[in-house]
Amino acid sequence: METSQRIKKMSEPALLKYYALVDSVQKKGKKVYFLNIGQPDIQTPKGFLERVNCLNEKVLSYQAPEGIIPLREAACGYYGRLGLNYLIEDLLVTSGGSEALLFTFIGICNPGDEILVAEPLYSIYKEMAAATDVKLVGFKTYAEDGFALPDISIIEAAITPKTRGILMTNPGNPTGKVFTAKEIGVYIDLALKHDLYLISDEVYREFVYKDQAYLSPAQYPEMSQNFILIDSISKRYSACGVRIGLIVSKNKVLMKQLKKLCQMRLAVSTVDQLGAVSLFELDQHFFDDTLKEYTHRREIVNTALQEIPGVICKEPKGAFYFMVKLPIKNACHFIEWMITDFEYKGETVLLSPANDFYLNPDDGADEVRIACVLNGEEMRIAMEILKRGLAAYGCAFPEACK
Amino acid sequence: METSQRIKKMSEPALLKYYALVDSVQKKGKKVYFLNIGQPDIQTPKGFLERVNCLNEKVLSYQAPEGIIPLREAACGYYGRLGLNYLIEDLLVTSGGSEALLFTFIGICNPGDEILVAEPLYSIYKEMAAATDVKLVGFKTYAEDGFALPDISIIEAAITPKTRGILMTNPGNPTGKVFTAKEIGVYIDLALKHDLYLISDEVYREFVYKDQAYLSPAQYPEMSQNFILIDSISKRYSACGVRIGLIVSKNKVLMKQLKKLCQMRLAVSTVDQLGAVSLFELDQHFFDDTLKEYTHRREIVNTALQEIPGVICKEPKGAFYFMVKLPIKNACHFIEWMITDFEYKGETVLLSPANDFYLNPDDGADEVRIACVLNGEEMRIAMEILKRGLAAYGCAFPEACK
Repeated sequence: METSQRIKKMSEPALLKYYALVDSVQKKGKKVYFLNIGQPDIQTPKGFLERVNCLNEKVLSYQAPEGIIPLREAACGYYGRLGLNYLIEDLLVTSGGSEALLFTFIGICNPGDEILVAEPLYSIYKEMAAATDVKLVGFKTYAEDGFALPDISIIEAAITPKTRGILMTNPGNPTGKVFTAKEIGVYIDLALKHDLYLISDEVYREFVYKDQAYLSPAQYPEMSQNFILIDSISKRYSACGVRIGLIVSKNKVLMKQLKKLCQMRLAVSTVDQLGAVSLFELDQHFFDDTLKEYTHRREIVNTALQEIPGVICKEPKGAFYFMVKLPIKNACHFIEWMITDFEYKGETVLLSPANDFYLNPDDGADEVRIACVLNGEEMRIAMEILKRGLAAYGCAFPEACK
Repeated sequence: METSQRIKKMSEPALLKYYALVDSVQKKGKKVYFLNIGQPDIQTPKGFLERVNCLNEKVLSYQAPEGIIPLREAACGYYGRLGLNYLIEDLLVTSGGSEALLFTFIGICNPGDEILVAEPLYSIYKEMAAATDVKLVGFKTYAEDGFALPDISIIEAAITPKTRGILMTNPGNPTGKVFTAKEIGVYIDLALKHDLYLISDEVYREFVYKDQAYLSPAQYPEMSQNFILIDSISKRYSACGVRIGLIVSKNKVLMKQLKKLCQMRLAVSTVDQLGAVSLFELDQHFFDDTLKEYTHRREIVNTALQEIPGVICKEPKGAFYFMVKLPIKNACHFIEWMITDFEYKGETVLLSPANDFYLNPDDGADEVRIACVLNGEEMRIAMEILKRGLAAYGCAFPEACK
């Protein structure tokens, strides 16, 4: 029995292979700091379960395919507070940001069509593209200059007759990059000039540190027909297990088409939708408090990383990741060695290898992603472990170091 | 800005066009019995919300992509009570049966590959196929003989080198058909002979009336590598708004591939999964009570339909739909007329036109689907309205009748 080519092209998450190793060392008493996945430790606002606990529905029935009105109204209220004027008909509720992206890929691309994206990129984009027969075409950005966009000519050279859209992640995962007005201008110019959709994945919108402003193509009226916003409550409200995302666009023709995909899967979870209304109603204080915590962690991690010899990393401007170039040749080997062979006071760290964040798995061999998903003190200890691990690795494998 | 060909090929649900009409007549005081959609009125078991209300999670985090272990264990327990021996590694939890089907289509078909299916078919299969560039190839079954499978040679003639699977719905929506041992044997023979997947959508499994036994290819060990079970809690537990479905198969290679699609969308709703554990734990009494109610409705509707001159319909053996041939030429016109022009004691009914359940929209012009989703007394009144409506329509449009 054969399976399809498209599913064979998909990859298993790179991290899976480490979990068996982690299990075995944990059983031997080694403590592992998990800095590998973007599952925040911040408490989910209590309003969610409180709202859910008030439910008294006799029948938990299908809701409207495009999402319940109270949730879309609450989301519009949230966008309004950001200065974005969206109406409920501009919103489709999806089962997480993942479904929003999946539907967008299906809706704008035929098999073989292309979407342009900066590398390093969120690894799951590759799986979405494989599943929907879309070809991702990448252009590189680099740790050395904080993952700044390259010159417009470099991006433009990657556009072909099959290009249907540009996908930007703002703030970036894994890069922590927050695009400047000039960089957003580059994306907008290209989209308008070449008649492309500009898809902006802004699930980390509320994680922009004080040294930079949040900007979005959503703020440019001339983009109304080209722009698609991908959103999710997962990170913003520390509610990853509540599967609520959004596709947002002023392009009525596109939205009418995308709604057919919502109808195809009937509805999004009733309970998740009703509970999520309470999250969109939270005011700025919630974000301020959360950002304060992540700012603290960023400072700790950045200070620690800058002190490690040979590490290349600019302080991220947004999200809660550090994409770090290490003075080694093979991050996968280093990560595995850290689990199996290294410990400092009986503890070690699990990092993400960066090759998963590139279209070509040979790229990013000397990079790792660090997720700031533990509290400040734990992050401090984890960075100390990383520093000592790198030194020990350098002694053990001088030929594997730079 | 163009959208994709695949999304343009998708259709909007046929019923949408009637809702505006229904709205306008409801505002004028006409009562409408909605027999058009499969949203049961049966109470969702209280255990779901009770379980959810006990939740005390600090962080609602991502769960395992393949579904939480307690839910898969509870589902295995349910299958065990049916005599089906599945292990948790044979199960992938999905966001409703829809996602289970979508992933299966992506996982076994390349763009352009074919899946064989009996017509009339569940209309959303067509949208899934369009979205995933799969071609559905149909073979006809007929109201006159209760939608029995045609001779094996007719089905076999539709198999091409591009055929990847056969999709059966058992019990059938919209047909109410429950396959006999002989018919299941036909499907199994074809799947084994031509090396095809046999996908069985069994979301109505617990709605099999006493005059027939439930049988499934799952009961045939020789099918272990070819068989894929699609399941959902929506209808079975009257929990359509709880988005929990399952892909079940003993084919480990296939399941390893399909798991990548689960990883792509990260997780299914935490709350829905935890609550659904309580549903799978319900014993046979719940199904017995529900079936008793639907048996009552089936009797009322069947008795009423058999008394209407010119109606062709065998009593369905399963599910809660009647697929009915009416003595008219254009069911769409009749349904619309029933809403806008007809009333009996200030009331009317909304039915589903059957052309939505065929691959060629010209088919099924004289058929409608009736969903038994109201209580017995309401179903009795609705059938009376239908009977009187047909008579009045015959007088108003003799040329549109047979």
